Amino acid sequence: MTADRERTGPAWGTFLELEPSAGGPLHTRLTRALRTAVTSGRLAAGSALPASRALAADLRCSRWVVTEAYAQLVAEGYFEARSGSATRVRAHAGASVRGDARAGEDRWTPRFDLLPGVPDLRAFPRKRWADMVRAATTELTWDELGYPDAAGLPRLRRQLASYLVRGRGARVETGQLVVCAGTLDGVMRLCRALRAAGHTRVAVEDPGWTQLRLTVAAAGLTPVATPVDEHGLRVDVLRGTPDVRAVIVAPAHQFPTGVVLSPARRAELADWAREVDGLVMEDDYDAEFRYDRHPVGALQGVAPDHVALLGSLSKTLSPAVRLGWIAAPERWTAALTSKDTGGTPPPVIDQDAFTRFVSSGSYDRHLRASRLRYKRRRDHLLHELAARLPGQAVSGAAAGFHLLLPLKDCPADAVVEEAARADVRLARLDDYRATEATGGTPATSTLVVGYGNLTDQAVPGAVQRLAHAIAHVRAGARGH
Amino acid sequence: MTADRERTGPAWGTFLELEPSAGGPLHTRLTRALRTAVTSGRLAAGSALPASRALAADLRCSRWVVTEAYAQLVAEGYFEARSGSATRVRAHAGASVRGDARAGEDRWTPRFDLLPGVPDLRAFPRKRWADMVRAATTELTWDELGYPDAAGLPRLRRQLASYLVRGRGARVETGQLVVCAGTLDGVMRLCRALRAAGHTRVAVEDPGWTQLRLTVAAAGLTPVATPVDEHGLRVDVLRGTPDVRAVIVAPAHQFPTGVVLSPARRAELADWAREVDGLVMEDDYDAEFRYDRHPVGALQGVAPDHVALLGSLSKTLSPAVRLGWIAAPERWTAALTSKDTGGTPPPVIDQDAFTRFVSSGSYDRHLRASRLRYKRRRDHLLHELAARLPGQAVSGAAAGFHLLLPLKDCPADAVVEEAARADVRLARLDDYRATEATGGTPATSTLVVGYGNLTDQAVPGAVQRLAHAIAHVRAGARGH
Repeated sequence: MTADRERTGPAWGTFLELEPSAGGPLHTRLTRALRTAVTSGRLAAGSALPASRALAADLRCSRWVVTEAYAQLVAEGYFEARSGSATRVRAHAGASVRGDARAGEDRWTPRFDLLPGVPDLRAFPRKRWADMVRAATTELTWDELGYPDAAGLPRLRRQLASYLVRGRGARVETGQLVVCAGTLDGVMRLCRALRAAGHTRVAVEDPGWTQLRLTVAAAGLTPVATPVDEHGLRVDVLRGTPDVRAVIVAPAHQFPTGVVLSPARRAELADWAREVDGLVMEDDYDAEFRYDRHPVGALQGVAPDHVALLGSLSKTLSPAVRLGWIAAPERWTAALTSKDTGGTPPPVIDQDAFTRFVSSGSYDRHLRASRLRYKRRRDHLLHELAARLPGQAVSGAAAGFHLLLPLKDCPADAVVEEAARADVRLARLDDYRATEATGGTPATSTLVVGYGNLTDQAVPGAVQRLAHAIAHVRAGARGH
Repeated sequence: MTADRERTGPAWGTFLELEPSAGGPLHTRLTRALRTAVTSGRLAAGSALPASRALAADLRCSRWVVTEAYAQLVAEGYFEARSGSATRVRAHAGASVRGDARAGEDRWTPRFDLLPGVPDLRAFPRKRWADMVRAATTELTWDELGYPDAAGLPRLRRQLASYLVRGRGARVETGQLVVCAGTLDGVMRLCRALRAAGHTRVAVEDPGWTQLRLTVAAAGLTPVATPVDEHGLRVDVLRGTPDVRAVIVAPAHQFPTGVVLSPARRAELADWAREVDGLVMEDDYDAEFRYDRHPVGALQGVAPDHVALLGSLSKTLSPAVRLGWIAAPERWTAALTSKDTGGTPPPVIDQDAFTRFVSSGSYDRHLRASRLRYKRRRDHLLHELAARLPGQAVSGAAAGFHLLLPLKDCPADAVVEEAARADVRLARLDDYRATEATGGTPATSTLVVGYGNLTDQAVPGAVQRLAHAIAHVRAGARGH
């Protein structure tokens, strides 16, 4: 073991950049990290790779993960394996394989995809959308085919304002609306504006959507992880955090816990924002999809001068459309489209197509149909879970399209790995926790089970495999 | 005059942010600046505006510009004018008018638009594009409707690589290609990557495309204006500039001078990039449209390890499509799509539609037809200019879709203003000069005349009005 350790060196764990599990199971991520190390030149041609057992120990994963990754890279021509000797990086590996056919090849497309955050892509209204794009392409004026308005197509901004007032209880005028490419683009623009205004730190929910943290950091601000409990964001902790006057929060349906910000906390948060003259970035993540409870209006409607409401079509139509919006307090809107801190507007043709989609009533119809579809699928999923995993607690199922399974006596990471072997992709709650120790929520053994992009027919099979994976891991744990 | 000065105060000139003339004639820009001052609260309700003569003196413009702006804002309800008293900001002006109908209203749509950089929007192949979008929307796989590949759709990247090799003499493999939203988005990503790698300054051409300078600054780097002469970028000046290892340059057709980087300078620039181990960002601006000379291959083909080639559809199809690409040296590609320094990819549907547009041969056909159309229009324009402005020198007309008119004994800014009154929009060469004094090109009195988005029928009328404006200004200058 000591010899192995020496050959591996302590560097491997940090040398390989393994992304969070949204990038696929561990063996896929390891494959990708090793491949990148080769193509970037950090792993030189001819270098010997550590023995699989040694690297597995260093990365604290099973040996299978490493052998699987090595085998894949041998198959791709990056590595060569000779019996009786170490696996090595092939000469000219980078040069010979960087070419075209391989672009995008490492996207794992599992048979059962239970990752959260992806809507039902099969329900994308292809024909209706193509009709709207055709009408837009045909009827846009010549001028409108030129450089687009930085804040977005005026008629779309009007439609969105009226939609947000009507559907989300927001208090918005058209002048406050900026069309962007999605929630992360909106957060990026707001963070750049905050930075230009002297902010240095932005609070984010912990656990929370990892990309939000990364976006805050990419804008040059420090994300400050702030814990979430069963009532939502801990506003008392936020209040005690120095130098923070901005926060990103998902009041309607926190990701990934599924918690709704309680009325008391909403009031507290609005008070805080007014007191510090700060900005709440309200991620209106899947607020459209509620099943068992009353709709939750946007926090923006309560404190319109201190809340920027963010929304997008990524969860309601498809992430392929790349359209979103920011309804910001007026003093921030100019910065959201400025040359210094703003961004580029989405294609005008798509903006016009979506305007038509909303004004024709198609969007409302699509949302209603989606809500029914997800509710039916969720009920089906709950039924199968009750049958296959009797006694298993479930939480966060009242809205959105994922739920949580807190496991007992069973490590969630092992279940995720085991499920991946059965072609099932899912995530752990702890994948969405900030790595910094900030007094956040304690470590859990909880699975996040998404059902947005799962066909109805696949529900029983997915649950069966998941139940097998859990049983397998439990048996293994008992076997030790 | 002293009293006026006092009432105006010296602040107005700096208080109002008048954008460069790309934003329309001076009275439109002043209207916008005043309106923004009201809506942002910087000009409080009830405030008295300075007398038109005083403000005109302070802004060094004609009084007509000010009275025109005041009249417009009275009409819009922002200002109120009472006879015998100063024009004032109306009470609640911001609140009552910020609403919807006004969004985007201040875009001036002149009858004759001679601003450079806009292609012939009337030639946008609406039907063909709508067909491609329909095919894409119908045939994309379910998976492809999910979160898009950060580097772009793999088959589009393959198409673009082969197109750039074939059409631009580039040396590119698919792995080096990143699909982005356009040239500025590409420059922004490259600049963020440069900044992350420790760069602090980026050289830009002077005169040059203003947006490039702004984008460099928005990425947190200092743009360093570097002069351009009749052989293109002054590489000797670049070489003498400390702490600069990156430059943005348009070798095929410099904007706005129209100069082609000479073979000697190309070699010098490639040598410089290798010596400092730097990065040349090659803006392949309208390289597709050459009329009287041999095609100029991309500089990237000469020094592929130190040149990132940038292109977009904004000049060849329409800025409304918002699609572009970066072919970068391999060590930069990861940063262009990373969560920290990258950006979001354009909509997958549009990426797939453009893939089809290229692979069906439609793009090549569209480029050929455009080249012929622009050449015919240029010839027509040159003919009209020779007839209406005999003896007037013309330069930069061998490629692209704008040309330069160096004026003698006639201030270009006055001509731009006078032409605006006749509903003709055009720009001055000096609008594109960096404001910093960096030993750049000396001040000129040169007009930039774009003909991309001018109908063929409008050519005689536009030239007639322009000739009148020049004659009017010359007569006024002699009258003094």
